[in-house]
Parts: sequence; structure tokens; C-alpha cells
Amino acid sequence: MEMRDLPWSHAEKQLARRAYLKALENEKDALIVKFKDRAAKTERIEDLWKLVYWAEQRGKEINRKYDYRYSVLPIVLGRLIREHDIDWEDLAGLGEDKMRFIRKVAGL
Amino acid sequence: MEMRDLPWSHAEKQLARRAYLKALENEKDALIVKFKDRAAKTERIEDLWKLVYWAEQRGKEINRKYDYRYSVLPIVLGRLIREHDIDWEDLAGLGEDKMRFIRKVAGL
Repeated sequence: MEMRDLPWSHAEKQLARRAYLKALENEKDALIVKFKDRAAKTERIEDLWKLVYWAEQRGKEINRKYDYRYSVLPIVLGRLIREHDIDWEDLAGLGEDKMRFIRKVAGL
Repeated sequence: MEMRDLPWSHAEKQLARRAYLKALENEKDALIVKFKDRAAKTERIEDLWKLVYWAEQRGKEINRKYDYRYSVLPIVLGRLIREHDIDWEDLAGLGEDKMRFIRKVAGL
């Protein structure tokens, strides 16, 4: 079956949502920590503008990365595994029909 | 004479440049201090985006405010006086032809 046509059970949706949100929160927290750290070290206006630009780019990357449409969610989850944002155990309970796609992306 | 046609002597240019740069440096320094202070207090991603947006707006305001074309410089200097970014004594030595415009803007 095509990835976009896979049926998601209620339990699978809950499980995927939890893993996704855990990774998203971690990503945001890491951004805040890095931002505060760089801000504390900023002494020149040029560094301030570089920091502002960097934060905006990171925000856009996060928005692109965290796409919660079920039609692409296996790709998103696979990437989160690949980038160590979540663990395999966070996905325990997902059907083999999704895991097949997730493993493929995670192994890229 | 129209403001844009006023002749600027070398000494006047130097003096105006010094006052202008003093105010601009102060403005940038104040922005950095405020930015660092707000960044240190940032705990949520929403506050981070508000801070980034605020910094960009401040940057644009500063760019608009600090226009060094001689054709509009009396307006710029008058506004700096009005907003207490520079003092009258910073302009001591400017010809009465410029001071007339500067006083008008400063008194608005």
C-alpha cells in the first residue's frame, strides 16, 4: 500500500503524536538553550544580527522537519530516528505497514 | 535657502558626523543590552520569536532614523535632539542656516 493511504488506528495516532511531540519539544528546548547562550556572548551589533538570522533559519528548518500529516508521517518519524531525536522504542506499537517505511528512511 | 541646498563646510560635516555616530552607537548599544536582557529571560519558544521580531523591528527603525544624506541631515539631527540622543552642545559650531531647521524639528 502507498504510504499516503495507510490507515492509522487511534492507538497508533496517539503513539506517533507522543513521539513527534517529544522530539519537537526537545528541538525547541535545544534552540532556546543555544540562543540564550549565544545572546549572552553577543557584544557587537553584527553578532546580534547573525544570531537573529540563525534563529530564524532554525525556526524554518524545524517547521519543515515537523510535518504532522499522516500521509508523510512515516518519513518524518524515520528522519527523527535517523537524527536520534527519538528512539525505536518510542515507536513500539506502530503497525508493520508504517514501520516498513520508517525503517527505510531511518536507514538512509 | 532650501534645506537640501545648504552648503556644508568640512568642519560642519565633521561635527555633524561625530554627533550622528555618537547617537547611533548609543542606540546600538542600548539595543544590544535590551536584547541580551530579554534573551536571558526567555524560557518559551514563543518569547524567543517575539524577541527576534522585536529586534528586527528595532533594526529597521534605526536604519530609517539614521539617514546621513546632507539633504535631510538637519531633520535627522533635530530628531536626535528631540529624542535626547544628542545634546545641543554636540551641535555647537553648526551654521545658523542648519540650526534654523534643526530647532524647528527639535521643537516639534
